[in-house]
Amino acid sequence: MIVIGERINGMFSDVRTAIAKGDKETIQKLAIEQVKAGADALDVNVGPASAEPEKTMSWLVRTIQEVTDAQLSLDSPKFDVIKSGMEVVKKPPIINSTQADPEQLQTYFSLANETGASVIALTMDRQGVPQDVDRRVELAGTIVMTAMEIGIPFERLFIDPIILPVNVAQPQAGFVLQALSQFRYLSDPPPHLVVGLSNISQRTLERKLINRTFLVMCMAMGLDSAIMDPFDKELMDAMITAELLLNKQIYSDSFLIAYRSKFGRTDV
Amino acid sequence: MIVIGERINGMFSDVRTAIAKGDKETIQKLAIEQVKAGADALDVNVGPASAEPEKTMSWLVRTIQEVTDAQLSLDSPKFDVIKSGMEVVKKPPIINSTQADPEQLQTYFSLANETGASVIALTMDRQGVPQDVDRRVELAGTIVMTAMEIGIPFERLFIDPIILPVNVAQPQAGFVLQALSQFRYLSDPPPHLVVGLSNISQRTLERKLINRTFLVMCMAMGLDSAIMDPFDKELMDAMITAELLLNKQIYSDSFLIAYRSKFGRTDV
Repeated sequence: MIVIGERINGMFSDVRTAIAKGDKETIQKLAIEQVKAGADALDVNVGPASAEPEKTMSWLVRTIQEVTDAQLSLDSPKFDVIKSGMEVVKKPPIINSTQADPEQLQTYFSLANETGASVIALTMDRQGVPQDVDRRVELAGTIVMTAMEIGIPFERLFIDPIILPVNVAQPQAGFVLQALSQFRYLSDPPPHLVVGLSNISQRTLERKLINRTFLVMCMAMGLDSAIMDPFDKELMDAMITAELLLNKQIYSDSFLIAYRSKFGRTDV
Repeated sequence: MIVIGERINGMFSDVRTAIAKGDKETIQKLAIEQVKAGADALDVNVGPASAEPEKTMSWLVRTIQEVTDAQLSLDSPKFDVIKSGMEVVKKPPIINSTQADPEQLQTYFSLANETGASVIALTMDRQGVPQDVDRRVELAGTIVMTAMEIGIPFERLFIDPIILPVNVAQPQAGFVLQALSQFRYLSDPPPHLVVGLSNISQRTLERKLINRTFLVMCMAMGLDSAIMDPFDKELMDAMITAELLLNKQIYSDSFLIAYRSKFGRTDV
């Protein structure tokens, strides 16, 4: 699994406050701790309330790069915000995200092509988020075809079927699982499949239980990446165990420790 | 999910001791408590060490029926042991299990047909447990075709792809998931899909974590029944949450309590 740590997001109050104060230490600690907890990449999102999102994205990227060389995921619905991150980022990042409209795919994939960046493409377009399986698969097909035309290798392409909260759109969870199982057949090798995991449990009372259960179900369907909380130990345990059961890590009695030792952690 | 409680099995020392002493109370308590914890049916297995397995099966069935009318799963590799349970069972049970050899299927399905019993059929034959996906699907095809010939309705047929312990046969877990995903297409409506869950974690150090992770992965693939431990609260929580995400239970903030209240439990 490619774990993209979700915590540096202005939606969280500690990050919002740190941004407002120019408090680098809080941001840097979140970066270091997420990598230690198992994040392979770090999502960077200025949050919905940012007054100067371009400047903030630039500051966040520079701040994080002072303490880690982990790959960054530049997360914004606005192209200008992503571009301001691209200007200062050292290592080719993940562009998070483009919708599946042909023109937007052209723009984002071209930027990825020029810079060596990876891209997360959402199976939604101007008409909104699909309410069924077929439309998700259709849009994933558009994404894959456009990536092939522009020459984005599939190891740099992530497709996101878009998770909706189970409490308001309950049938969508099953549709996402079915869509994931079909995305695998769009190309060989397949693109990465990613979800923004925490969306599934928005405003529910059992957030962690719902998150880890859904992550494991998605992994059975071929998901190999998630924007998620690496600080949630039970979530990480479930993820590591699913990897084991999918034969992606060799069994040992201490497989949890073995997995975490990859990040230099032997204390858990 | 159809939860078949695994605890009345002579493999467990408390049950073995109770059988040896003729201690009805221990058996009856396990029966009542499993039903309270969410078991829809109760597996009854005399265990591998039983000296008089036919007599013991008969005693267990009579003992359990004194305190609950839950459906029983008569679990033995020996036909005579299952038959001795059939002679005293009041409600049509689940016959657990037959292998997929044509003659054995004929014998067991005929018994099920005469008595109204359900049957668990394993995707293995005299050649042993398949080591791949295709052979499991082939044997499942034989099972479904034979059931159709003899007239066993699919709501009384359970197919078991056979789980092997992840520590000794690690690739098999993924093969079981793939096999389950294909079993769904063998008939419409599909047969029930069942696993003996605890096998996956035999002799591992993280038994509960492995059990609940694999259960949820299997459910994503269409599993709708498992022989499992209803006393494992986290396992039951994971199962209930997977049902929610598969849209089989209507969402409420207190969905765990709502599910359990079906069994008259409101204390969890």
